[in-house]
Amino acid sequence: MTTVGILGGGQLGRMLALAGVPLGIRCLAVDPATDAPAAAAAEVLTTPFDDPGALAELARRCDVVTIEVEHVPVEALGWLAERVPVRPSPEVVAVAQDRWAEKQLRSRVGIATAPFAAPDELEVGFSTGTIVKRRSGGFDGRGQVRLDPSATAEAVRAAAGQLAAPSVAEGVVAFDRELSVVAARGLDGAMAVYPLVENHHAEGILRQTLAPAPGTPAALEQAAADLIRLVADELGHVGVLCLELFQVDGALFANELAPRVHNSGHWTIEGASTSQFEQHLRAVCGLPLGDPSVRSPSAMVNLIGSEPAPGGVLALPGAHLHSYGKAARPNRKVGHVTVVGVDEAERDLRLTALRQVLADRAPATTVGGPDALDDVITEVPT
Amino acid sequence: MTTVGILGGGQLGRMLALAGVPLGIRCLAVDPATDAPAAAAAEVLTTPFDDPGALAELARRCDVVTIEVEHVPVEALGWLAERVPVRPSPEVVAVAQDRWAEKQLRSRVGIATAPFAAPDELEVGFSTGTIVKRRSGGFDGRGQVRLDPSATAEAVRAAAGQLAAPSVAEGVVAFDRELSVVAARGLDGAMAVYPLVENHHAEGILRQTLAPAPGTPAALEQAAADLIRLVADELGHVGVLCLELFQVDGALFANELAPRVHNSGHWTIEGASTSQFEQHLRAVCGLPLGDPSVRSPSAMVNLIGSEPAPGGVLALPGAHLHSYGKAARPNRKVGHVTVVGVDEAERDLRLTALRQVLADRAPATTVGGPDALDDVITEVPT
Repeated sequence: MTTVGILGGGQLGRMLALAGVPLGIRCLAVDPATDAPAAAAAEVLTTPFDDPGALAELARRCDVVTIEVEHVPVEALGWLAERVPVRPSPEVVAVAQDRWAEKQLRSRVGIATAPFAAPDELEVGFSTGTIVKRRSGGFDGRGQVRLDPSATAEAVRAAAGQLAAPSVAEGVVAFDRELSVVAARGLDGAMAVYPLVENHHAEGILRQTLAPAPGTPAALEQAAADLIRLVADELGHVGVLCLELFQVDGALFANELAPRVHNSGHWTIEGASTSQFEQHLRAVCGLPLGDPSVRSPSAMVNLIGSEPAPGGVLALPGAHLHSYGKAARPNRKVGHVTVVGVDEAERDLRLTALRQVLADRAPATTVGGPDALDDVITEVPT
Repeated sequence: MTTVGILGGGQLGRMLALAGVPLGIRCLAVDPATDAPAAAAAEVLTTPFDDPGALAELARRCDVVTIEVEHVPVEALGWLAERVPVRPSPEVVAVAQDRWAEKQLRSRVGIATAPFAAPDELEVGFSTGTIVKRRSGGFDGRGQVRLDPSATAEAVRAAAGQLAAPSVAEGVVAFDRELSVVAARGLDGAMAVYPLVENHHAEGILRQTLAPAPGTPAALEQAAADLIRLVADELGHVGVLCLELFQVDGALFANELAPRVHNSGHWTIEGASTSQFEQHLRAVCGLPLGDPSVRSPSAMVNLIGSEPAPGGVLALPGAHLHSYGKAARPNRKVGHVTVVGVDEAERDLRLTALRQVLADRAPATTVGGPDALDDVITEVPT
């Protein structure tokens, strides 16, 4: 029996733990929340991430320690890494926590990215508009301020001051669509790359993922695979990672990096031969990576705020409900539903039926789609 | 949150509990074993099935109670049924516990079955050979004695005496192959029927299931669906059930009935649109049944005795490992592997590769296949 420690016990930890059970892998999570979703299939130590007793217990009991959120104390990971393998490494997590370091990494390996600068170095805002973001800690659209094109230097500095934390100014990218690529890198450097998926956000929160991304040329698919390989190799990453991208004409711009399983990879549970959760456990445990190929065209819809009564969703052929066991709260991700079909046409019909069920049953879960898209650059950490 | 009580916390309870988590269903199992596999995803009360305190706790905390093995005290189920819905009902479980009652049921609804009689009523053994079986409690080929064709009445009675329990004498059926059909019946009487599967036994233990059963004519498929519907309706069953069958020329003979999820349905986790475990929970919770259609041709191979090192299995594309977390022991089912393919040819190639890995890695898990088939009528309770 292998024991995997996880810093974080949210829905990602829950799905990791569920994926581990059939592999003979038990998860031991640390989470300060008293109702951590992972508790359904993992042992959870309910305490702050940096509780020395909990960390000592992880070091003593686990074969390897991983994360399900990147916003965990790097010092805690560093302490653990002296005693037990930590994958991804504290250094990788530190890069992902800091937008500045992340952008430097991308520049270093030559990945196209939105123009960026320190707010107090700008003489005028970017001509396409400026978004001032906290260097760390923001998610689901929080921790950022959007400014009109060519905002004054004073406006940029005022926005940075408003965030009351180290920040970075980015130029707005007028993208055609938002994509992401999820992949796993094994202990031996092997990579398994899932296909590009198309993401729809509203109010800064991921609402829907179409997998694979419709109408994607093979060259774009290859470009995404090359990008994520570059990043993963440069980092020496071990585990699943996700790179969020903007498509602009035929090109890809990197947006956010998440060194962990990702909301835009949830479709893989039913839609791919190996789920991202099993894949991550395989990677961090030094097991062979699984086949990332698509089993069925899929659409993943997040349940935001509250869950619908399950009967309506379960009556839909091809719909798979994933409840996170979380209390209802505005803008909270409390579950997701994946619909699969034998082809895109069937998937789309089923997705339409699902939207109808969700709209009818529980207004709080109404999903945003292309029509609900706003053009704010958003962050999607889970 | 719905809570489902389960009498039994073995691998079937484990897979039920895993299927429940994404549906927002928590399982509370009772099992006397201190290392119950279900504990990975369910709360387990470690105590005998008829412990009054545990039963009271089930009655108090559960929305519905079900079983994962049929060999549980019917009295305990009866006590529960006065306090909480029990599905299947104690009466259905009682029938499934008693070969005699089960055979009478099948005769009543007009299902072809092997000839049978009370051992002391036979003047001579059946011309095709006789198997004397305990009326209840036998499984995996235990609790039965096989006799040559036309054995004397004395030999039949001696065999019955040897079993030291109420027994039934059956005529051997010279079958072409062993099949089974798994279905679910909902609270509203709706049925969802999985396709016929082909089962290979050795030493009385299920070794392998091919799903769907290769080369099955539509008429045979329909006949199996009709049979299981007849039985389920007659019983007023709620939940998943399995009917084991013999194919003899183009006809089906009923063998064993199991009013629960079944080893020959494990392939549905990856191979069908809805797994038998989710299906059972949907049924007993009064939720709509899921789509039972096949996603991929599948083969399920039981891991008997001990598990292989996971790396070999996980390196095979399309192979899905299911460890039960059980200690190694001869003839014990400790896990299974399902391989899927886009078609039967790919599935068969992958199955061959899997057999090689299992044979190479861990002799204790060598699997039986068609070449290991013996023609003993066997029982496969899990």
